[in-house]
Amino acid sequence: MKARVHVTLKAGVLDPQGAAVRHSLGALGFEGVERVRQGKVIELELAETDAAKAEASVKDMCEKLLSNTVIENYTVEIL
Amino acid sequence: MKARVHVTLKAGVLDPQGAAVRHSLGALGFEGVERVRQGKVIELELAETDAAKAEASVKDMCEKLLSNTVIENYTVEIL
Repeated sequence: MKARVHVTLKAGVLDPQGAAVRHSLGALGFEGVERVRQGKVIELELAETDAAKAEASVKDMCEKLLSNTVIENYTVEIL
Repeated sequence: MKARVHVTLKAGVLDPQGAAVRHSLGALGFEGVERVRQGKVIELELAETDAAKAEASVKDMCEKLLSNTVIENYTVEIL
């Protein structure tokens, strides 16, 4: 079973990577880029075959390792 | 208009970040994690209001800045 996790910075948390990308896009001549936020995507392949159990397990992974819940949000998709 | 870009390593390209995450999950007691790949997600807010033009522009950004097309794949979603 495959799972995909998105980890993104919470609203209001400064995103220097996103700001750097936005600046570089401007320097390359791309106009009208108003905001850029950069996050992580983590794709997992799990031996678990039950979707509900897999989702619970991946959420636990997010809380314990994959995200910093002080400054980041995460979403879990089971594919 | 919002766009979301996923940038992931091509199949066969070594992913040390993913391997480190997999190892750490094992150390934390998560069993049955067979494979982990880590990539980037970039969310853009564009002034452009035409979806087709926005998509073309974001693909151009991917080719020129957001991804390294030698080792990475990208997908563009217009939201």
